[in-house]
Amino acid sequence: MENFVHDIPTKVYFGKGVLSQLDSALRQFGKNVLLTYGGGSIKRSGLYDEVMKILNEGGFKVIELNGIDPNPRISSVEKGVALCKENDIDVVLAIGGGSTIDCSKAICAGYYYESDDLWYMVKHARGGMKVLPLVDILTISATGSDFDDSAVISNPETNEKIGVVFAHPAVSILDPTYTFTVPAYQTAAGSADIMSHIMEGYFSRTEDSEVSDGLCETILKTVIRNLPIALKDPDDYAARANLMHAESVACSGIPEYGKLGSGWPCHAMEHELSAYYDITHGVGLAILTPHWMRYILKKDPSCMWRFVRFAKNVWGLEGDDERELALKGIDALEDFFKSNGIPSSLSELKIGTEHFEDMASHCCEGGRMGSGFVPLDKDDVVNIYKDCL
Amino acid sequence: MENFVHDIPTKVYFGKGVLSQLDSALRQFGKNVLLTYGGGSIKRSGLYDEVMKILNEGGFKVIELNGIDPNPRISSVEKGVALCKENDIDVVLAIGGGSTIDCSKAICAGYYYESDDLWYMVKHARGGMKVLPLVDILTISATGSDFDDSAVISNPETNEKIGVVFAHPAVSILDPTYTFTVPAYQTAAGSADIMSHIMEGYFSRTEDSEVSDGLCETILKTVIRNLPIALKDPDDYAARANLMHAESVACSGIPEYGKLGSGWPCHAMEHELSAYYDITHGVGLAILTPHWMRYILKKDPSCMWRFVRFAKNVWGLEGDDERELALKGIDALEDFFKSNGIPSSLSELKIGTEHFEDMASHCCEGGRMGSGFVPLDKDDVVNIYKDCL
Repeated sequence: MENFVHDIPTKVYFGKGVLSQLDSALRQFGKNVLLTYGGGSIKRSGLYDEVMKILNEGGFKVIELNGIDPNPRISSVEKGVALCKENDIDVVLAIGGGSTIDCSKAICAGYYYESDDLWYMVKHARGGMKVLPLVDILTISATGSDFDDSAVISNPETNEKIGVVFAHPAVSILDPTYTFTVPAYQTAAGSADIMSHIMEGYFSRTEDSEVSDGLCETILKTVIRNLPIALKDPDDYAARANLMHAESVACSGIPEYGKLGSGWPCHAMEHELSAYYDITHGVGLAILTPHWMRYILKKDPSCMWRFVRFAKNVWGLEGDDERELALKGIDALEDFFKSNGIPSSLSELKIGTEHFEDMASHCCEGGRMGSGFVPLDKDDVVNIYKDCL
Repeated sequence: MENFVHDIPTKVYFGKGVLSQLDSALRQFGKNVLLTYGGGSIKRSGLYDEVMKILNEGGFKVIELNGIDPNPRISSVEKGVALCKENDIDVVLAIGGGSTIDCSKAICAGYYYESDDLWYMVKHARGGMKVLPLVDILTISATGSDFDDSAVISNPETNEKIGVVFAHPAVSILDPTYTFTVPAYQTAAGSADIMSHIMEGYFSRTEDSEVSDGLCETILKTVIRNLPIALKDPDDYAARANLMHAESVACSGIPEYGKLGSGWPCHAMEHELSAYYDITHGVGLAILTPHWMRYILKKDPSCMWRFVRFAKNVWGLEGDDERELALKGIDALEDFFKSNGIPSSLSELKIGTEHFEDMASHCCEGGRMGSGFVPLDKDDVVNIYKDCL
């Protein structure tokens, strides 16, 4: 087993009605609040009004930054930092999913950053920075940004999308009922994201980190069982709660404790896809992952044992032929994504080969594709993109 | 799924050689250190010398409190608080297992407590207190005190042993190699304690908290697989590391998230046993748990489904007759404890019926036996004690 460090100071309130904790969660930091959110979904659902009632009754001064896009942009970060400085903000309150929370993490770090070049900050931050406190209210089960210290920020001018470590939220408010209104497509894509966060760590050479491997299998099975229920009955509390619980743990680092890191190759490849084509992150992951699996299994059959374990322990498959069993597990994953309405090829998203070379070059920078489970080079990545067409 | 709050600020360094973090872990709080430990085992193993070298080279001022007993006493807490006050202590450094860490948590809380009546504090503390920071170095995988906010303190004058909530350690240093020298009997008893921490929460009426139930089963299977390896080869790093990883999660509250609490009935009954007879906590739990299981299964067969799940998912048993399968799972647990050298009856520990009535009265106070999975009254508890003879 490998060494690890656990350091997650976030306080999480999980369950029905935990918005009652919002006032005290903010008040410990001060009265001046930057409220960040994306489009109008929180207004349609009524959550915006609920939150504003609490903030007004509590006497908080609220400045708003709305319109934060999926794949949040550096321009939103710059706007947010300017608003914080102009308004002497004490705490940022993010309402939304990973995009809003990620953008808010960058704003919290940017507030104290020594220069105005916030894209430089995104490219060079490595955690341990002084940050404004962040409180979030999660509205979709997907990224796990509510319980990790990372953010992904895009720069459309340079076609770059960069994952970076800032700091954990101070408080996360996780009420599964807020995800009842998430549309089917986004629910499914979010679940693919949760599963990818687990699979990126699960597919490791480390064989003896038993608590982590068991936790990974538990979370995968939890998503596999609950996603179809949530799609069929969007108001099923237990299904939504299980997806949200899975979501918060999946990206926390906890499922990888004691394991050699893989470098998160599917995330590296997907970030290029959404940087170039602005596609939904979870959809990109769902398309890439089975093809990545088949590719590395062919390239280096010494990793077969892990796929056999995946087929048996996650999908409940059995069989004597190891290779056949391994491939059946991958097929089961692909079928699961398809059966829950997620596109299964890049062609369906009208993506062609035109940028594959550049995308592969980018994602091989920084060594992520060369470390971990089965190292891949640029040609391998181009081949995997092509397999996804 | 039930609501829950996650709030564990402890920073954990896990793995070989993480003692290298000790200097910085202490230095953030100050230079005056109260060093607490139990008997001479840390001197025999060389750990004491290693730690003192770091403390001396770092220029720390060290005051020692040694001789902290298993089932730590209020008198040690009083001594520790007095030493902290006399020496203007900035941080407590506990080296040992649950007893030393528990006692140190009480010292950290007692330092700021408004009165000198520290037994009153133990009987009434409910967390949220101002405390001195605590850094610990764990030397046995058992209680999980390194990653929870609780302590159990005994008062031999009143035959009381009380579990109480203080605060989490600030930093825990978990190097599995420090457990290589733990004798077989204590290794096995510690593993029984880990398993009990899981089983107390696993046996719940909540059926839909899937991440937590899967995590519980993972940790139980991890202990079941690794304890015999650690007993056969005490220096097997992976086995010791898996037990330590399991230990830290098991008592953290995390495995119970989303589940209705059971009240931890076996712990309530065991605390009476060790308050009266000063027996090893894990041994008391290993004796009590299978008898508690058989008793409640008979008293309220509506809990059968949970025992069937336990038999299937933890022990890999199969069968069509639910009752038979449930009982087989309990037998498997009892056999596992026996096969790893743990006594299986109170008679083996020379314990008779003389205090059963008083013990049962005590442990039914505070409602722990009356809440949760299958409520029990005083007569039930006496019967379970008798079944353990």
